[in-house]
Amino acid sequence: MSAPTRSRQEERSAATRQRLMEATIECLVERGWSGTTTTLVAERAGVSRGAQLHHYRTRSELVIAAVEHLAEVRVAEIRREAAGLPQQRTQAVLDMLARLYTGPLFVAALELWVAARTDEELRAALVPLEARFGREAHRLTVELLGADESKPGVREAVQATLDLMRGLGLASLLTDDSARRGRLLRQWAKILDQTLREA
Amino acid sequence: MSAPTRSRQEERSAATRQRLMEATIECLVERGWSGTTTTLVAERAGVSRGAQLHHYRTRSELVIAAVEHLAEVRVAEIRREAAGLPQQRTQAVLDMLARLYTGPLFVAALELWVAARTDEELRAALVPLEARFGREAHRLTVELLGADESKPGVREAVQATLDLMRGLGLASLLTDDSARRGRLLRQWAKILDQTLREA
Repeated sequence: MSAPTRSRQEERSAATRQRLMEATIECLVERGWSGTTTTLVAERAGVSRGAQLHHYRTRSELVIAAVEHLAEVRVAEIRREAAGLPQQRTQAVLDMLARLYTGPLFVAALELWVAARTDEELRAALVPLEARFGREAHRLTVELLGADESKPGVREAVQATLDLMRGLGLASLLTDDSARRGRLLRQWAKILDQTLREA
Repeated sequence: MSAPTRSRQEERSAATRQRLMEATIECLVERGWSGTTTTLVAERAGVSRGAQLHHYRTRSELVIAAVEHLAEVRVAEIRREAAGLPQQRTQAVLDMLARLYTGPLFVAALELWVAARTDEELRAALVPLEARFGREAHRLTVELLGADESKPGVREAVQATLDLMRGLGLASLLTDDSARRGRLLRQWAKILDQTLREA
């Protein structure tokens, strides 16, 4: 009779972690890093301080887990969505990436990036995540574009696409940049297609 | 005899403002927005609180003035530096822009961008500056590249170059990204040259 009990407890634990991670992203988006205290997150998630500390010992652990989790969810969503795309898909792929880099994941991650510049504990935790997420975003983009990285210039064009997305994410922080972004991405889709074909 | 007196006072005022602006950028780079208090800036600049308040009434006014001033200085430097460049200059121009977007100006501006997301007073002051700096950076890049924006796609290619620079700035916040950035910019120079020629 102990197995089902343990399983119910595991389910409760998973639900608690899920609520904490969602509350963390909401706090980061609404109040930024400085407003994202563990107390506020626990309150918003409806989780006791004890339960929170059981799952995440520090503020850094909590925010890193939240951003990592959301990144996994979003990347999986994009892979599913991309499965239905036609062969001529460059523009659609860029639009999907742009949604990712102008959404809550980018905003939350940006809050951490900037805070980590001047917070050593956060920085130590964030640098490996940034490297892992960078590799994952690159792999995803290669896959979605059907890019052949053995051809010269293709790897850099994929990287440039992701750096461009980060720049577009920044440009949409304070004002609505969607019209300009749309025109720019239509042009980049042409250039990127040419680069992928030519190479 | 009043003119030279006034002029000496003006000189002292200008020197005070200069020290305050330099101290503000140093604080933003070293401690971020949250660590950039008016008290700390006055201390670091060796300026009395009264003198500081005489020149900049609020923290927002101070940081906006500092970033605006540094942007003007850097843009003027780039224009001077670019005057000596050869006709085939795309790669050199990209390298100059990349230095701008991975240096103290970008870091200080980024601190303000991110803080302004969740600080209404700062946001109200920053949005017009962001628009003005965006236009100025665009104009500078068009000028340096000798780009003809009446041709289709050229305007978007210049914009993409600046969005890319912002992305590269972000990518170099926590780790040394210079080797990757160098390879990427060599490829971007080829793509950009082709776009400017073809159009």
